[in-house]
Order: sequence, then C-alpha cells, then structure tokens
Amino acid sequence: MSTLFGEDFLLDTRTARQLYHAYAEKEPVFDYHNHLSSRELAEHRRFANLTELWLEGDHYKWRAMRACGVEEKYITGDASDREKFDAWAATVPKLIGNPLYHWTHLELQRYFEITELLSPKTAGQIWEKTQEMMRGEGFDCVSLLKKMNVKILCTTDDPADPLEWHEKIRADKSIPFEVRPCFRPDRYILDPEGEAAHALMDKYGAADLDTALEKALGFFRENGCLLADHGFAGFPYLTDPVFAERFRRLGRAYAKEGMAMQLHLGPIRDTSPRLLRRIGHDAGADSIGRSADPEAVAAFLADLERENALPRTILYNLNPADNMLFATMAVNFAPTVRYGAAWWFNDNIRGMERQLEELMETGALALFPGMLTDSRSFTAFVRHEYFRRILCAKLGRVAEEGLYPADTEVLGEMVKAICYQNAVEFFLPE
Amino acid sequence: MSTLFGEDFLLDTRTARQLYHAYAEKEPVFDYHNHLSSRELAEHRRFANLTELWLEGDHYKWRAMRACGVEEKYITGDASDREKFDAWAATVPKLIGNPLYHWTHLELQRYFEITELLSPKTAGQIWEKTQEMMRGEGFDCVSLLKKMNVKILCTTDDPADPLEWHEKIRADKSIPFEVRPCFRPDRYILDPEGEAAHALMDKYGAADLDTALEKALGFFRENGCLLADHGFAGFPYLTDPVFAERFRRLGRAYAKEGMAMQLHLGPIRDTSPRLLRRIGHDAGADSIGRSADPEAVAAFLADLERENALPRTILYNLNPADNMLFATMAVNFAPTVRYGAAWWFNDNIRGMERQLEELMETGALALFPGMLTDSRSFTAFVRHEYFRRILCAKLGRVAEEGLYPADTEVLGEMVKAICYQNAVEFFLPE
Amino acid sequence: MSTLFGEDFLLDTRTARQLYHAYAEKEPVFDYHNHLSSRELAEHRRFANLTELWLEGDHYKWRAMRACGVEEKYITGDASDREKFDAWAATVPKLIGNPLYHWTHLELQRYFEITELLSPKTAGQIWEKTQEMMRGEGFDCVSLLKKMNVKILCTTDDPADPLEWHEKIRADKSIPFEVRPCFRPDRYILDPEGEAAHALMDKYGAADLDTALEKALGFFRENGCLLADHGFAGFPYLTDPVFAERFRRLGRAYAKEGMAMQLHLGPIRDTSPRLLRRIGHDAGADSIGRSADPEAVAAFLADLERENALPRTILYNLNPADNMLFATMAVNFAPTVRYGAAWWFNDNIRGMERQLEELMETGALALFPGMLTDSRSFTAFVRHEYFRRILCAKLGRVAEEGLYPADTEVLGEMVKAICYQNAVEFFLPE
Repeated sequence: MSTLFGEDFLLDTRTARQLYHAYAEKEPVFDYHNHLSSRELAEHRRFANLTELWLEGDHYKWRAMRACGVEEKYITGDASDREKFDAWAATVPKLIGNPLYHWTHLELQRYFEITELLSPKTAGQIWEKTQEMMRGEGFDCVSLLKKMNVKILCTTDDPADPLEWHEKIRADKSIPFEVRPCFRPDRYILDPEGEAAHALMDKYGAADLDTALEKALGFFRENGCLLADHGFAGFPYLTDPVFAERFRRLGRAYAKEGMAMQLHLGPIRDTSPRLLRRIGHDAGADSIGRSADPEAVAAFLADLERENALPRTILYNLNPADNMLFATMAVNFAPTVRYGAAWWFNDNIRGMERQLEELMETGALALFPGMLTDSRSFTAFVRHEYFRRILCAKLGRVAEEGLYPADTEVLGEMVKAICYQNAVEFFLPE
Repeated sequence: MSTLFGEDFLLDTRTARQLYHAYAEKEPVFDYHNHLSSRELAEHRRFANLTELWLEGDHYKWRAMRACGVEEKYITGDASDREKFDAWAATVPKLIGNPLYHWTHLELQRYFEITELLSPKTAGQIWEKTQEMMRGEGFDCVSLLKKMNVKILCTTDDPADPLEWHEKIRADKSIPFEVRPCFRPDRYILDPEGEAAHALMDKYGAADLDTALEKALGFFRENGCLLADHGFAGFPYLTDPVFAERFRRLGRAYAKEGMAMQLHLGPIRDTSPRLLRRIGHDAGADSIGRSADPEAVAAFLADLERENALPRTILYNLNPADNMLFATMAVNFAPTVRYGAAWWFNDNIRGMERQLEELMETGALALFPGMLTDSRSFTAFVRHEYFRRILCAKLGRVAEEGLYPADTEVLGEMVKAICYQNAVEFFLPE
Repeated sequence: MSTLFGEDFLLDTRTARQLYHAYAEKEPVFDYHNHLSSRELAEHRRFANLTELWLEGDHYKWRAMRACGVEEKYITGDASDREKFDAWAATVPKLIGNPLYHWTHLELQRYFEITELLSPKTAGQIWEKTQEMMRGEGFDCVSLLKKMNVKILCTTDDPADPLEWHEKIRADKSIPFEVRPCFRPDRYILDPEGEAAHALMDKYGAADLDTALEKALGFFRENGCLLADHGFAGFPYLTDPVFAERFRRLGRAYAKEGMAMQLHLGPIRDTSPRLLRRIGHDAGADSIGRSADPEAVAAFLADLERENALPRTILYNLNPADNMLFATMAVNFAPTVRYGAAWWFNDNIRGMERQLEELMETGALALFPGMLTDSRSFTAFVRHEYFRRILCAKLGRVAEEGLYPADTEVLGEMVKAICYQNAVEFFLPE
C-alpha cells in the first residue's frame, strides 16, 4: 500500500518506486501544450490567495462544485474569495476517485508544504497559512513554474496575438525557462467570414484569410513557435470542402516550416445556455462528443502524405471509446504521426493507464512524447508528477507481472525519455 | 480471498468489509425503477415453484439458456415447470462470470437459505425444498420484498393505467412499504396517431395527445408518482421536430410538477422475428444499439434550461462506450442532471465498477442516487446487495491503494447515503 | 509473479497453473481462420532465416518498426535479410506491453529453444543459431505446424481458386493435419462489375455473379470447406440494396450447405498512399474504423432467420468499443450466432481479457469456439498458447476471487472445450 501523497504515492511495486525516484522525479518538464497567460508570466503575476490561484478560471473545479450542489454564487458569482474557498473545501472530501482530489493535495504539498487534507475543518488554517506564504517570495507565477523544474513551455495563442509578452519574457533574464507561442487558428477556420478573420487580414495586409494565416504563422515562427494546435468537435474534412482546403493549406504550411501539429478532436462546448450567458466560454459546460470519424482523419493525413507535406502530428481523442481508433491510426503514418496523451476528461489515473496500455498494445510506448498540462493554472504542473508516477506504476506492474524483464536500467531509460527527451526530439528536431 | 456467497462475498479488503457490514448492509431499499406488477403486489401473489418465480418472464435467464443451446421448448415453450427448472439448473454452471450465476445463488441463499450451488446434481433437492417452503408463509411477493428491507418502490406504468392496484396497495395496511407509479408514455410518443393514443385521448376527454398526456400525468401525481421514465433506441431530438416538441412539453410538465425524469438511451429491441412472433416483446432478443447522439441530448436539456424548465433528470446509457459521454454531459447541468446507475447489460460487476469509476473521475460519487433493479422479478432485490458489495469493494480498494484516506467513518457515511438517502433527497426533496 | 516466458508465464494463480498444465496445454489446435498459403504448405516450404520466416509478409511487425522510427528500407525495402533482422532486433526491446514482444520470444523458445531475449546484443548469435537450425529438419512449414499440435486448419481462399494445393495436401500422407479452404468472396461483392467478377463468371460458365459464386461455393464444399469469411469496413445492409440482396443469397447458400459464416466488421484499409504505392495492400496501414451499425447487422440476421436460412455465424468487431454491442447481438440469435474471438488489434492480453469478460457477462463463455491465429505466419501458432494462458489466468482469477467455485475439474473441462472441442462442435456438427 502506497501512502496517500507520500513519497511513494501511487508507486505500488518496488520497480515502480525505483523507476520514479531514480529516473522520473528529477527530469525537467517540457510542457508542450497549455493555456497559461503569457502576460501573467511576463508580469510575474502574484496571487492574493488560493481562490485567485485555484478558482478564478479553473472550470474543472467549477464542475466538481456544481456536481456537489454548490450554488453558482460560490463558484463564479459574487461571494467573497474566502466564501468561495470554503465552498471548495467542502467539495473536496466528496471527490473520492476524482483527479481534483489528488491535484489539490499534491499542490498543497508541493507548493505550500501542507500535508493536511483540505476539508471544512482545515479550510481556515490552510487559508491563513497559504495567504501568508503567498505574501512572501516564491509564489509569483514564474517561481511556481521554476519550482516544478519547467524548462520549456508552449502557450496557446491566437494568430492575431502580437506576441509582445512572449518577447518580454525572452528578454527577461530572471525567467529561467523558454516560453514559446503555439499557433491556434481555429476560430478563423470555423468562421472564415467573421469579424476576426477580417481583422486578421487587415492586420497582415492580406487579400484573403489563407494569406493572413500564413503571414501570422511566419510571425509566430520568428517568435519561436514549435507547434500548431487545432481542436474541433467533429472533423468535417470529407463533407466541407472549404474546411478541407483551408486545413490542407495549413498542414502544408506546418510541414514546410518543420513545425508539429496537434489535432484535438471530440468535445462539445457551451452546452448550458445558463452558464454561457452568465460566464461565457470555458464555463465548465463542455463534455465529450460523439466518436470521431476516422476516415476523415485518414483522408486528411493521406492527402498531405501524398504531396509529401505531412507535418509531424499528434492525434488526441476526447472520447475514450476512440482510443484504439486513434492509436492505430497514428501508426499508419508512423513515425510522423503520434498518438497523444490522455486529454482533459481522460487526464486521471484510469484515463492515463488506458492511454499507456493502448499505446503499448498498438505501437511503441518507448517513443511517446509524454504528458502536458493543457491547463490555465500555474499550479497544474503537479500533473507531470502525477503522470510520471502513473507511468512508473504501470511499467512496474508490467515488469513484476512477468510481462517484460524487470531491468530497471532499461525501463528507467524508457521512463526518462518519456518524461522529457522524447518531446525534445519530436518538437525540436535539429 | 472472499468466500463464494459467504458474508464477505466480493469484499476483498478490510475496509470493504467494514464499510459493507457497518454501513451498507442494513440500509433500507429505495428501488426507484423496476417493472414489478402492481396487481401482483396488491394481490399478494404466491408462486408455486421456482419456475414460476424465476423463469416465467425473466428474459435475462432466457437469453442465457439460449446461449447454452437449450431448446426453446424448455425456455418459453410447453415443457413442464420441472423440465424448465432442470434446463435452468443445467445452464447455471456454464454461466461463469455472468451476473445470473451470482443472482441465482444469492437468491437461493437470501430467500431460501440454500447454500448448495444449483446444478443438475442439486436440481432435484432444491426444487423439492423450495416448493415446500413456498407452500408456507413468507413467499408471497410482498413478503419477499419485506425481507429485503424495501421501503419505497416505483413501478413503471402506462399513462392509461387506472392505477387501481396502486390504490389498493396504499389501502392495504399489511404492505409495509410505499409503492408509487412511474409515468412511462413512450408508446404514445413513438406512435402519436396510433390506437392507444386515441384511446388515451378518449379516456381523458382530451382534444389532443399532449393534453391527454398532461391530464394522465396529473392523475399519476395524485397517486404519488415521483418519476417519469423514457427509453429510446435513439434520441431524434434534432431530426424529428414533432418528437422534439412533444418531448419538450413533457419535460416542462415534469419540471412544473417537481418530478424527476429518467432517460434510458440505447437498446435495439425485438431483433429476432422468430422470438417476436413466438413470444412477443421482451422475449430476450434486445441488445445494445449504436452510440447515442450527445448533441441531441445536450440540445434537449439546454432548451429546457433556457426556459427554466429543466426537471431533475437521470441519464442512463446502454452502450458502455458512452459512459464517459453521459457522465460528463450530466455535469454540464449539475446538480439538476445526474448520471444514472449501470443499466441492463451493464448490471454486472465490471459494468458497475466502470460506472462508479467514471462517475468518480468526472463528477462526485458522493451524491450518486444509487442502484435500482429495473426488473420484473420479485427476487431481483438481491441486486441491491450485489451493488452495495461492489460499491464497498470499490471504495475499499480506493482507500487501501492509498488514493483516499482509509477513514471508514467518512467513507461509511458516503456509502450509506448512496445506498438510500441520496435517492430520497433526489426524488423526494421537501 | 510468473516468470517471463517460463512454464508459468501469465499464470498468476495456482488455479490458473493447474488449469493450463492439466487441461489446456496438450489440447490439439483447430485454427479455423488464418491466411496461410496452401501452396507453401503443399510444397513444404522451408525458410532460409528468421527474416524470411518473420518479416517477409508480417505487417504487424512492420507497423511496430515504423512506430520505432525504422526506415522503410529496413522494413520492406532493399536492405539485406540480415540488416532487416537487426532492425527488428533493435525494435523488440522498445515493444514493452506489445503482443509482438511476447510472440517473438515465445516463437524463439517454442520453435528454436532459445531463451535469450532478442536485442541488438543478442541478434547476431540468434541469427546464426536459427539459421543453422533452419538448414536442418523440422523447420519446413508443415513441421512447424505439427510441432504446435495442429489438427485442423482453415485457410482463406478466393472463390476463383482452383484449390489444387488443397488437393495436393489431402493426398500428401506426410501432412498429419487437415487443411480446409475457407470461402472469401468479398472482392466480388464489393465490385460486382469488375474484371474479377467477369473472370469468375467465365470460369464457372455462369450468366451472373450470383450463380458463379454459388457454383464456386459448391466446388469449395467438395473440397472440404467449412466456413465462409467476410470482412468489411462498414456493413451497408440497410443502405445498399444490391449488397443486401447478394449477401442474403450468400447467407442462404451457407445455411443450405450447413456451413458457418464469419463476419469481420470494422477495419479501414490502405490509409497511407505512400505505403500502398510502395507495397500494395496489407502494408501495415490499416487501422480501426468507426463503430459498426448494429441495426444493419440485426436486420441481416433477422431476414435470414425469418426465412429459416440463418447459417451458424460468428460476429467479430474490430473496434473494441463495439464488444458489448456484438456480444449482446450474438445472443439475440443464440446458439446459431456466436460472439467471436478478440480480433487483430484486440489480439493482445487486455484485448482477449476484455473479450472473455464481455462474453461471460452477456452470454456463456462455456460454449465459446475459441481462438484462431488470423495470421499469414507459420509460427503464429504460439498465439494459441498465449490465448490459453490468458484464458486459464482469467478463470483462475475468477475462481480465486471467490466468484465461481475453484473446482479445477469443472473449470478444466470448460477450458478444454474452449481450446478445441467447442470449435469441432460448432464447425463440424455431425
């Protein structure tokens, strides 16, 4: 039995413990996909209290509070920071089996050295202690990332973004990690006649959207961009010729630039009109959509391959029923295409285990580019630790069940590469 | 190792055993969805033998017998009761891993105190012994439910039902539990021009079907109805405007009445023409249909939410590939919408574990309204015990694997609420 | 802990070990579906080295090599046999959790008595040793099958095949097992106006394709054919009336002949234009397609049942998200229709466990006709051992977890039947 949040948390075999402590724990972090604010990073934003740090924008936590019947007032409404924190503290003990339960406590331990469990009983003292700590040094957002041994970060940015904060960050010698923009043009693709599209054309003095996007991409590349990111509910490549043509153009551009492309398929968004009206997008009313169309994905990848213009690509599915579908699809175009990490609603113990298992069964885990946070939270980086423990636990079990030699050196090199080096090799090939 | 059907059956950790015996075992049963006959309850029906009790209408068992190659004569045909029982006894040992294996033996133990396993070898003595016991007291259907500590039951009823048996039951002081009707208008929705629809309009002197359904609903409410139930193969809310408008009306009516609504999505029914001709509906030729359309479900819930008319709703999916889809959908509208229990083909150990896991990972297990039998059998109530053991086993493992504090008091209160109190709070809010 | 590839490999309980060694291990093999070459069998083909034996046509291995970034030159290109073998040897250690890791080492042990693990370090000595052994007796393809205790084989054949190699095999007294053709007419169904269809009509002097297929089927039956095989991405029974009518005719013909029919649903094929151009079909660019349409499958089975012309049928799904859908569908038409073994991308530990679990939960494992190789490799027959170990491990756990009596005699007879006898009874009923 591994102790709750102790040093062997989740590490249920001897091999797992060796792998984690000797190979995984100290590897740096390459978080190649997240939604952190470059502005807040550039400004070394500080946080007044845990509500600001935790509850301001985290729709994962909002959902959990709603599932526990907390009134919206105490979630995104006009209750005080302390009231909101108390509502969260009352929610946490109900979240048995939910990753938020683990993340919350890992964050309290790793950033604040608090080992008490959060509950209405401990809320007061935890609030006081953390508030006091956050007044001191080491709790601005740059320090929080530094503490987690972050080496490279890719934020997610709009093609219209002037990237001035990224420039500031590069110039700031006190920031000890790289921060790179990621090109996310979805809203222009989905609404090519919209206001934003026209503004982008104006900004780049382009006669059409495609040219504007290509110019924006060039600008992003000058600013260190390694990846593009796309996220769609469906993938209408075989049914919408305008979408298909535009997306092919982008694919070609990524290939030409030597960039990687992420395809995130599967959410349905903004389902609750009440929350959309009240809060806007990313209100915590998104869920898993129907299964993706593998033939559309295959046709897209094939069309680019045919013209020798398939960029390095990562496929992510939100519906876990599609894991095997995407894992096997990636190998059709290996090693250019890779199967991505357990995403969003799959970012939990069983979700990650499934992703690892299905990747192992259908391809080669050894080359997996590893985990990312996909988060807007500066303390989300304990999820790399969470993933690494789960990875080591999985490999430990495989070895101790007699399915692979329990040679910690061989396994350890594999773990190490998945933690950091594989991502470097995939996203930053020389 | 837990003993087969012993007191620690399925309880594979110390924590699980403590949880079950101290918190789950003695909780009363609120079976909020089943297909029991109100007439048989009102008449205190007795059963001549195990064939009457077990095999008369249970298409789960029929399927298992067919899967084992038993001739239809011995399933639903003109073989004698004893021959049919013998055919079942020969089937049971082949059902390793099937919930029927467990249900059968739990029923023999709990109702008849028979610990022998059913097989051709023991069939004779079990037949004799149970037949003799059933001649005595304690084996009419009311006594069978009483024995299982049933406190509230919701049957499933046609809007045309005069509910006279429910009235008789309420007047019968010897029935120590509540029996409430549940409103199930599907056949009118699917065939709004059919004979039954016209008969209902006549019965309620209504000019149109919608009015007739609303009047029937009012009558059901006067008779203690707490829930409506709907079950469809698909959910054509976005493609069939007549269906959509009628269903929205019903949703509004449920909200106005303060009732809860169940949505059971996913079966395909009556697939075998041979069995349909020979036996009719519910012949054991139903199976799992394609994945549900989450956008249709989302649109329906959103439309009602928009007009402030979303009733408390439980979403059930039959295709387990849709678990995550429905579990995450429910939270979009939490706490009004809840993710339902493992249904029908999912009502087995792994099916229930999956449902619990996916509920935990994406929401809050602590508020789960718990299990139901969904059965036409008066001895199906051992399935509450089965579920409770699986629930305690699951939480025991979570705790003993170091994923949540092994505090049996906290866990125990959670278990207790899931066994009974959460359903009361969800279906009978003051 | 079971030893890696030792005699108790995968057998993690005492019961499992007893079941495997006393009941499973020595049962003969009825491989009712594979893609072996009847010509190579008739010619007692020999292999010069492991590259010929392993890498010549095995697109499973090709995929794994690509997933590890091996250049195509060393996979299907013009590198030397030794270079290709070395590329495979460098790939294997990366395949933790992949069935190829286990198959490779089981094949080295069972056929060559080599217990070293394959890696760049051991590649040279393994190459030398196996090459030398293959020069001697016992390594032609007939001997390889004999070694695995094969009793009946069903190859997969084109209706135009003259079956002359099958005839030769029957006449060859040195071949100690039956080799039967299997009727696979898909390309005629999918392209009824194509050249191949016209050639078949000419060959059989038939005025239309249906007659030609029926005559070919008659010829196959005279040559000992027991099964037909069909494999489609989708199943357009409800949308393509020509397909439906032709497929119904075939179904009727199978029923009339007393044959069994296999339905393999779900792959998408030849997704990579690069590999298709370079290598052709079966290049390792096939993956899992979208979920099957259960209503189309149900309608087809129902139509045949209605006219009393439903042949014994096995349903296989490639998308594991469809397991429950197909497992429950089969029971609608039990015992005529059966749920098939874990196929292709599911042919791995978890895939087989899932298939066994879902079969147990929804039907009767005891009647399962068991495993097949579905392979073009003469050494693929260790997969029967792999399956049998997984089966025994599963039943061992069910018993030792207290879910079924740990009576090795009862369990053993079940295991034995699944290994061989059930297939005989299903495919060769008197």
